[in-house]
Amino acid sequence: MRVYFDNAATTPLSEEVTATMLEAMRQLYGNPSSIHAEGRKVRAAIEQARKKVARYLGASIGEIFFTSGGTESNNMALKGAVRDLGIQRIITSPTEHPCVLNPLANLENTGTKIEMVTIDQKGRVDFEDLERLLEKENGKTMVSLMHANNEIGTLIDLDRLSELCHSQGALLHSDTVQTIGHIPIDVSKTKIHFLSGSAHKFHGPKGTGFIYINNEIALKPFIEGGSQERNMRAGTENIYGITGLAKALELACENREERRRHVEELRACFIRQLEENFEDIQFNGDYDGSCLPKTLSVSFPPSPRSELLVLNLDIAGISASGGSACSSGAETGSHVLDAIKTDPSRKAVRFSFSHYNTKEEIDFVLEKLKTMVALKTVAAK
Amino acid sequence: MRVYFDNAATTPLSEEVTATMLEAMRQLYGNPSSIHAEGRKVRAAIEQARKKVARYLGASIGEIFFTSGGTESNNMALKGAVRDLGIQRIITSPTEHPCVLNPLANLENTGTKIEMVTIDQKGRVDFEDLERLLEKENGKTMVSLMHANNEIGTLIDLDRLSELCHSQGALLHSDTVQTIGHIPIDVSKTKIHFLSGSAHKFHGPKGTGFIYINNEIALKPFIEGGSQERNMRAGTENIYGITGLAKALELACENREERRRHVEELRACFIRQLEENFEDIQFNGDYDGSCLPKTLSVSFPPSPRSELLVLNLDIAGISASGGSACSSGAETGSHVLDAIKTDPSRKAVRFSFSHYNTKEEIDFVLEKLKTMVALKTVAAK
Repeated sequence: MRVYFDNAATTPLSEEVTATMLEAMRQLYGNPSSIHAEGRKVRAAIEQARKKVARYLGASIGEIFFTSGGTESNNMALKGAVRDLGIQRIITSPTEHPCVLNPLANLENTGTKIEMVTIDQKGRVDFEDLERLLEKENGKTMVSLMHANNEIGTLIDLDRLSELCHSQGALLHSDTVQTIGHIPIDVSKTKIHFLSGSAHKFHGPKGTGFIYINNEIALKPFIEGGSQERNMRAGTENIYGITGLAKALELACENREERRRHVEELRACFIRQLEENFEDIQFNGDYDGSCLPKTLSVSFPPSPRSELLVLNLDIAGISASGGSACSSGAETGSHVLDAIKTDPSRKAVRFSFSHYNTKEEIDFVLEKLKTMVALKTVAAK
Repeated sequence: MRVYFDNAATTPLSEEVTATMLEAMRQLYGNPSSIHAEGRKVRAAIEQARKKVARYLGASIGEIFFTSGGTESNNMALKGAVRDLGIQRIITSPTEHPCVLNPLANLENTGTKIEMVTIDQKGRVDFEDLERLLEKENGKTMVSLMHANNEIGTLIDLDRLSELCHSQGALLHSDTVQTIGHIPIDVSKTKIHFLSGSAHKFHGPKGTGFIYINNEIALKPFIEGGSQERNMRAGTENIYGITGLAKALELACENREERRRHVEELRACFIRQLEENFEDIQFNGDYDGSCLPKTLSVSFPPSPRSELLVLNLDIAGISASGGSACSSGAETGSHVLDAIKTDPSRKAVRFSFSHYNTKEEIDFVLEKLKTMVALKTVAAK
């Protein structure tokens, strides 16, 4: 038996998405920039995909641009805002993904002011601190805060964030890679200037994503060249990826509540049994508050037996992660867990679920964990 | 009957490549940055692909980085050279692809000196002019010249170019998107610092490419974030695209001579019959000298009948292009044809072939052309 509990790192393609992509691979071989029959056919498929993505986000078609993934989308938003929109200051948090923090570090080196908002021990943004920062006169400002943290799942209230940014005249970028297809976002109601999506986080293909850019924003391309994506993203389009992304988003949104309920049940069952069976179990992030249903960061007490826990889980047939994907299985530190001041002597494992997971898999993982970490003593019961 | 003579714009996926990608879509779902079993499996497949690409280019494994395509690769090389290597001047030509010319125009706006080498009416670089430019003392210099032009097929002698750049201490970037898999390139013999490849130009997938960076060069990432591609290109890897690219390159290189002969025969036959049957036919570029076998830019004399030639060909079931893909079928001008000073009153159509095309298709196109453009008069014979 092999159990995949690393769905925050990436998800398997669903069979329907594979079928959609395979059809595109066989039928759609023209260059969408060509106006002959083969080209027009591909162009039409891309525009259908764009329409679908726009619809599920409450966006207009002209606000969706396909990219090679969430990382490119975030690079494009952050660097473009500074280069093209006169943004002089970006307020962010220490728990953002490296594809936000690394571009920001380089923007800081070339003169952009980067400020960190305070977050609490559950990874929640301190809105009062954010308001204080925004109220300081400090040049044209953008806020960049992720919708849900990839390691601990803590969710931010996008509506509240949007209202605060709006009232202070700041632009808002949100890395929504973990939430697109999982948590409803409606940009016709929640004013956001940039958001980013990555197909492989919702059972779509790796290497394809999109950026939403509010149509009030006039950005120049990050990848320059031909006139693809209405002059906003050069390079011949990844047609199989784009059709796969749209299909996966459709499936995710149409089945969102059902999938969410299933994943929430698995997670609740897992939490309950972990607490019942194991000694001194804790959970990182806002796990019983506002959090992503799919993600559970479990904190095990220090013990020699739990030292190589992620590695031992893998050997036992269970895929989970030490932190983000970049450190899945690796026993290295996590900037997120550092930022929320978790006890470094404890062992964190991120388990992340999808609708493909089952109750039997939860039981299997619990059985295996019993051979790896300290059980509750009878006395402790 | 539908005839696809636009293989310089893009190529259909070969069935073997589709099969390779489909297997990856079904089997390789882990995140290659994860060190658990699913992740390691994907990592291994990517490194196998990298090894294959490196081998066919005479490169070492550490010199190949996968990207979202040729456009991203060219952006990365040009912008990175200026940002990280202290390049102050880039010498290029007016017939480069927009994904070179547009980044260069923006680099010029921010202080990089951009100089144009003289090209002749066949699109050939004037090496004496290039030498003069290189001899001028003008700061650390890179030369960026494409291996084969995408519209007219004119080839440059990469060995001669490499030697000249080397002797003058200039770096060399070559946009090799049109030639990878078609014309042998061996970077262990020809010193080039950057070259770029795009899978969909050799029957691989759209949305995947690579950049070769000579290991003497220390570049920082263009897309920043996670530590993918040895910290050189962030973003979860497009595993299906990467395995498809490697398979397509393998097929292209293993069958290169056979494919080249087939395409050369088709092209020669087409040229001969065009000359025999039609009035005042000319060919753009170095068509009977050093050129890409797959590409033929035909220049038809001015006539009301040939006004909407590309459109009429499409209606007749033939896909060709007015210039590059970006203007396939569009009756707009071409910066390449302008740069080589073609007569603007004449009509250029780019026909580009692959090993899938046949002699019967050539005959079909000739028959259709007879209804569209002026035939030779008996007197003219």
